[in-house]
Amino acid sequence: MFPTVIKLIPFIEAIGIIAFCISGFIRAQQRKFDSVGVFIIGFVTAFGGGTLRDILLDRRPFYWVEHQNYVIAIFVCSLLAGKTLDFMHRVLSRKGMIVADALGLGLFTITSTAIALDAHMPYFVAAMLGVIGAAFGGVIRDILCGDTPLLLTDSRPYASCAFIGAWIYIALLHFNANDIVSLLISSSLIVVFRLVSVKLRLEVPKGF
Amino acid sequence: MFPTVIKLIPFIEAIGIIAFCISGFIRAQQRKFDSVGVFIIGFVTAFGGGTLRDILLDRRPFYWVEHQNYVIAIFVCSLLAGKTLDFMHRVLSRKGMIVADALGLGLFTITSTAIALDAHMPYFVAAMLGVIGAAFGGVIRDILCGDTPLLLTDSRPYASCAFIGAWIYIALLHFNANDIVSLLISSSLIVVFRLVSVKLRLEVPKGF
Amino acid sequence: MFPTVIKLIPFIEAIGIIAFCISGFIRAQQRKFDSVGVFIIGFVTAFGGGTLRDILLDRRPFYWVEHQNYVIAIFVCSLLAGKTLDFMHRVLSRKGMIVADALGLGLFTITSTAIALDAHMPYFVAAMLGVIGAAFGGVIRDILCGDTPLLLTDSRPYASCAFIGAWIYIALLHFNANDIVSLLISSSLIVVFRLVSVKLRLEVPKGF
Repeated sequence: MFPTVIKLIPFIEAIGIIAFCISGFIRAQQRKFDSVGVFIIGFVTAFGGGTLRDILLDRRPFYWVEHQNYVIAIFVCSLLAGKTLDFMHRVLSRKGMIVADALGLGLFTITSTAIALDAHMPYFVAAMLGVIGAAFGGVIRDILCGDTPLLLTDSRPYASCAFIGAWIYIALLHFNANDIVSLLISSSLIVVFRLVSVKLRLEVPKGF
Repeated sequence: MFPTVIKLIPFIEAIGIIAFCISGFIRAQQRKFDSVGVFIIGFVTAFGGGTLRDILLDRRPFYWVEHQNYVIAIFVCSLLAGKTLDFMHRVLSRKGMIVADALGLGLFTITSTAIALDAHMPYFVAAMLGVIGAAFGGVIRDILCGDTPLLLTDSRPYASCAFIGAWIYIALLHFNANDIVSLLISSSLIVVFRLVSVKLRLEVPKGF
Repeated sequence: MFPTVIKLIPFIEAIGIIAFCISGFIRAQQRKFDSVGVFIIGFVTAFGGGTLRDILLDRRPFYWVEHQNYVIAIFVCSLLAGKTLDFMHRVLSRKGMIVADALGLGLFTITSTAIALDAHMPYFVAAMLGVIGAAFGGVIRDILCGDTPLLLTDSRPYASCAFIGAWIYIALLHFNANDIVSLLISSSLIVVFRLVSVKLRLEVPKGF
């Protein structure tokens, strides 16, 4: 069973990148940006979080430098942004988009946490960098668009799902669980947390 | 007398970090952010300036990676942000907050300038990095909150006090003054400049 | 003829830096920032793009660390911002400013692309970094001022001229053209593209 699941990872990765990029495209469309703006916003939403994580860790080359094809694909799609969005709306319903985004959140949080642990970051910092890698592409998107980041203004759990999942991953590794098993369990749990919290309209408490 | 004063530095450092973090919490409270937002804003206000300085200097590990306990403390406080602010308001008056913030400005400007000089930066760049390390946490806080940075819109001297203090430190070192004496004199002068300029309602000229 | 042209490069570089800095000063003046704000905005408009490029490439020292005199000049001008702008308005008409800015865009795009290729970036990434180095100082300026970046909202070709020019440079090098000839041709073409597109009021298509 294992090898099959591992083969799924690049596939989930692609789904996550597409979901993030499309969320950028949708924002750019709302703002009526031209193709240049569509590309920039799509790109930073997809890769901004991982890039910030790598800058903080002083890690090179960036994922998108090593996987230039993704960047070119986003570039081509941004030239045809209207058609790309039409196509995505036909393939994925609004619910489908939420699921795709949750898959990206789950996978990228855990891969980011793994990268941070690999760079000898202490546990708490590694969990933070997990959230940054998965969720800060959207923060950069929002800042570039002149909006206050959704991560700050939207009380529906997003970063908190990722953070809890990162700690589950760290705990599993700490107790010597297998790397891939830990990744699968914890990223799946993030997806479940996110989807359940959207379904049940949960909110992060204000703390004030 | 010396050893006693040196022992005070970690204590002043803690006061500065707390003051910066609390200024982030207050902003997050005004914006009604949830606990996630409170943590993010508290964290970047406290550590964003030093992190930006270290990225510019290509310097690792960051202070907050080496002092994870501060991050965990901010995290816990952000979960109890209401109580933290109530407590702080009881301990520190508005004037106390200004003094605490000025202490942070003074100390972090000089330690940042020292770090920049240590990295062989030329004098003018070192003074700039001193200001960045002390004052740009607030700039990142403001950008994340969707506000135009206070550093740009508020004409009361803040960066300018830090900048002048950084040059005093550089001048003292240049004329072979003792490291610690230079640090104490210049950071104290920044505190004095800041408090006097607040007291006298001084303003930086517009230049136009 | 060659040596003469090469001697022009530092001169064009200075024109570009001044043009970018002045565009920052003008924005700061509109916002009624004090001298501190004028300096920060002038500085990031002039050097922010190259700094972001160098952070992404993990490249040090920054241009402005090695050419501290430019920073000091911007500092002095920001103290006398009113007079600096008066002087610039007398020396350069609005059209002159557009030409100076286009010269900066042309030169900095190609030097940034060259630096990225030198760091073994793949072609597409190198072209992107060319645009970032030349055009993202303005993006950082806009974000600091609390505006949505002109690069995203203004449909007149700017980044697109730079991007096409970067590809012309890459193509010329790919077919073994001389370094300096390639730089001159491609950066001149960017200037022409930019000025023609301003003249003809061209717009980048929306893509939606």
